[in-house]
Amino acid sequence: MKKKKKKNYQKDSIALHKKYGGKLELKLKTPIKNKDDLSIVYSPGVAGPCLVIQKNPKKFNELVSAGKTVAVISDGSAVLGLGNLGARPAMPVMEGKAVLFKRFAGIDAFPIVLDTQDTEEIIQTIKHIAPSFAGINLEDFSAPRCFEIEERLKKELSIPVFHDDQHGTAIVVLAGIINALKILGKKKDKTKVVVNGVGAAGVAITKLLSLYGIKNIFVVDSKGIICKKRDNLNNTKQSLLKKEVQGEICGSLFDALKDADVFIGVSVANILGKREIKQMAKDPIVFALANPNPEIDPEKAKDFGVKILATGRSDYPNQVNNVLVFPGIFKGALEGKKEQITDNMKLRAAKALSRMVKKPRVDKIIPGPFEKGIAYTIAKAVKSGK
Amino acid sequence: MKKKKKKNYQKDSIALHKKYGGKLELKLKTPIKNKDDLSIVYSPGVAGPCLVIQKNPKKFNELVSAGKTVAVISDGSAVLGLGNLGARPAMPVMEGKAVLFKRFAGIDAFPIVLDTQDTEEIIQTIKHIAPSFAGINLEDFSAPRCFEIEERLKKELSIPVFHDDQHGTAIVVLAGIINALKILGKKKDKTKVVVNGVGAAGVAITKLLSLYGIKNIFVVDSKGIICKKRDNLNNTKQSLLKKEVQGEICGSLFDALKDADVFIGVSVANILGKREIKQMAKDPIVFALANPNPEIDPEKAKDFGVKILATGRSDYPNQVNNVLVFPGIFKGALEGKKEQITDNMKLRAAKALSRMVKKPRVDKIIPGPFEKGIAYTIAKAVKSGK
Repeated sequence: MKKKKKKNYQKDSIALHKKYGGKLELKLKTPIKNKDDLSIVYSPGVAGPCLVIQKNPKKFNELVSAGKTVAVISDGSAVLGLGNLGARPAMPVMEGKAVLFKRFAGIDAFPIVLDTQDTEEIIQTIKHIAPSFAGINLEDFSAPRCFEIEERLKKELSIPVFHDDQHGTAIVVLAGIINALKILGKKKDKTKVVVNGVGAAGVAITKLLSLYGIKNIFVVDSKGIICKKRDNLNNTKQSLLKKEVQGEICGSLFDALKDADVFIGVSVANILGKREIKQMAKDPIVFALANPNPEIDPEKAKDFGVKILATGRSDYPNQVNNVLVFPGIFKGALEGKKEQITDNMKLRAAKALSRMVKKPRVDKIIPGPFEKGIAYTIAKAVKSGK
Repeated sequence: MKKKKKKNYQKDSIALHKKYGGKLELKLKTPIKNKDDLSIVYSPGVAGPCLVIQKNPKKFNELVSAGKTVAVISDGSAVLGLGNLGARPAMPVMEGKAVLFKRFAGIDAFPIVLDTQDTEEIIQTIKHIAPSFAGINLEDFSAPRCFEIEERLKKELSIPVFHDDQHGTAIVVLAGIINALKILGKKKDKTKVVVNGVGAAGVAITKLLSLYGIKNIFVVDSKGIICKKRDNLNNTKQSLLKKEVQGEICGSLFDALKDADVFIGVSVANILGKREIKQMAKDPIVFALANPNPEIDPEKAKDFGVKILATGRSDYPNQVNNVLVFPGIFKGALEGKKEQITDNMKLRAAKALSRMVKKPRVDKIIPGPFEKGIAYTIAKAVKSGK
């Protein structure tokens, strides 16, 4: 029944894309009716704004659309749950992201897919086109390259750069966890969290939870718990041991789950059963975010003993959906003329999002995407952050 | 009086850019009202069109807006008559170009300015972002780099690449010359043409006139006639001697003008006076295209003996305006699924444009930009070309 429904979304989506020939369109803000209009919109009049910007680069944002437009950029290396599709097949996702920017925050966004998966070429290409945009939303870059790409661009550009698969997800997860802990009366400094999966989202979630004040975090990859004794850790995983993760205890995912209050899965489908849930502390909180099939069967989670369940799916309560976050993040960054989206802004955004749920319940720890004022609230949090 | 008017266009243009915050806007083609819409426009449904494109790359144009969108790209090295302004100050021009694509041919176009003026970096960057577009309009790249950039991209990409400053100008000029020669009863193979200026436009005009069948062409740069004896010629100028230019005669611009039927200036203001026009053949045709001030004072040209005058200015008859050409060129190339814009298509476009003037007169050798059917006619010519 559920599978059938999902299949139809894909079919409906193909039909919609065929019907409209894509989802995005460019429009003139002002009509061109006669020679005078032409001389003002283009040559010779257009020399005017060119010279103003040359003289005072800060006027850029005020005078051209580019100064308010976000680039949605991908190399197609990690598209949805589909994997490495490459540039052109990734475009429907990027175009979709661009229309969500407009729909949920009124922000013009334009999709760019890159015909290279070389880290340095990606960085250079984005730097070269950066003056065409007011902000860069990185999308569906595979880990661990995505970390270097984002870090380098943040350092080398003075416009906001945001890898949504990392931070968008982390912000929604933290918002949900804040409300889940509140419902169950658990304290953040006494909460044990297991993060399963060390890709873009897993790393960002771990860092943001740590920043929020959760001290007991276990991170698990396909080989087990990330711990100091392991000699098969890449740079990203090693760096977690310096701060976010204690790393004294090694073992399996099952070992990690012992007395855990929260499980956050950003990995593979169906790895949590009754036995795993029983291993956890009382009233377990499970974020099963694998796409399209979660780490736990949502139909059975309650029977297994899960108290609060969140997934990535729209057909169950508590959907972790990045659309709650990225439109407001960029709205705040652009309106607040921020050159960076900082950790402090992400933390503020997560707290603001959690407060959008007036009375958290087990089946309502995260707002729905169509609730009013979300982008506005997140933008406000970002604008007042440093 | 005239100067005052021009000044006002710049002022009006600055005011318009401020009022609207730029000229271009992104819009959704289809509304997003509820969770189902969201699941179709974005995840999970969007996986559908992604997989279709992965399986059959030719579906790209059909399914996403990118498959119908032209990039207007510049490095800001030769902006209008203003020179090397760099990336951001060039944006009002590129945004203007993008809105003209939409206004005159219904084509979505998006402006990109590049933060590099290194030829190889420009080529690589454009190649890397090319899958995001259906065609590339190069704009305001300085010569001679512009020739290499266009040639390389044409070879290495399978979407249309068109440097408008070269070919757009050349096509309008040829259309005007066809009609001017017709009015005066001059034959193309007995016509002597002097092209003054060997930048992007000068080279392309020379090549297209030669292709059309004009055999006696003199090309002049700041040091005099391009001829075989000169040892100070760059590659571009040397290559003209292989085909388009005979190069047996050296000398000054004044020498070149001896008995010339046509003067085409793409160089500097006010170099033609009464003496120069007298040096030319009977009924001289003058294309004085220097911007914003032409090679000859348009107010005095008639007194000097000029029979037919064309300029780049909208306030005199016979305006050589690229907007007559580039929208239709890309419309034809996209609708005709052309991978290249060939010389044959340019020639056909020029002839089609000349035929748009039903009864050519000395003050009407070129259609006005708002006449109906221009983009359609040019597109038709391009589509049926090879």
